[in-house]
Amino acid sequence: MAADSNCLFCKIVAGEISCETLFEDDAALAFMDIGPVAPGHALLIPKPHFETLADATADAMAATLKHLPALVRAVQAATGCEAVNVLQNNGRLAGQLVPHVHFHVIPRDPGGQFSFNWPASKYPEGRMSELAESIRSHWT
Amino acid sequence: MAADSNCLFCKIVAGEISCETLFEDDAALAFMDIGPVAPGHALLIPKPHFETLADATADAMAATLKHLPALVRAVQAATGCEAVNVLQNNGRLAGQLVPHVHFHVIPRDPGGQFSFNWPASKYPEGRMSELAESIRSHWT
Repeated sequence: MAADSNCLFCKIVAGEISCETLFEDDAALAFMDIGPVAPGHALLIPKPHFETLADATADAMAATLKHLPALVRAVQAATGCEAVNVLQNNGRLAGQLVPHVHFHVIPRDPGGQFSFNWPASKYPEGRMSELAESIRSHWT
Repeated sequence: MAADSNCLFCKIVAGEISCETLFEDDAALAFMDIGPVAPGHALLIPKPHFETLADATADAMAATLKHLPALVRAVQAATGCEAVNVLQNNGRLAGQLVPHVHFHVIPRDPGGQFSFNWPASKYPEGRMSELAESIRSHWT
């Protein structure tokens, strides 16, 4: 959880690199994404360094994500967007570029360019329960 | 925040519709998505009814999302997936199908079919600060 001297977002938290701050308290920081996928694209991060959600603590996530409703409301009010996605990526294959947990708040409007596909499927008989049992057994 | 009698997830919370539960406490419920975009696809929801994040309270989100690290760890351990996305959709244009706040935990593996594009752009000079000022002014 100590700041990582090589981490871009730890440097932003420390004030060594500037950002356009939207909100800040002891636990969390919200700021503008400088490479927006839509106008008003914002980020919400815990101040302590966690590379991924799997590394994060419950307390840090509670103290950070309690601000998500206020951030979403403010982004919607400022941009007038019709809808909003919240996206958080863990690992390169998931699209994570900065190794410090961050939640993207992405305004959505007709004609906007950000999108995702949704290849919904069905489990073979019994497979969902089997996976669920394994997930429950790994809950710590 | 009262249960909505027409809401699928309120019915699941009330036990009127069954689900494959992964975790439950007074504030939150985690369960398997029955239309998975990848094996192990799970959902985390607040028990009270909020249609979108803009309607949600800070306390309810803290009490729900403190469980996100444990859920991500358990899904990763059970599936052995390489990476994980967390996605939350507000509004039909953002892909929201059930009008009760829910966070998707989506395992990612090479060859998996879920994906999103990332049309990163740059703001014209001055535009980011202007939007940030507006977002800050709408923070409530």
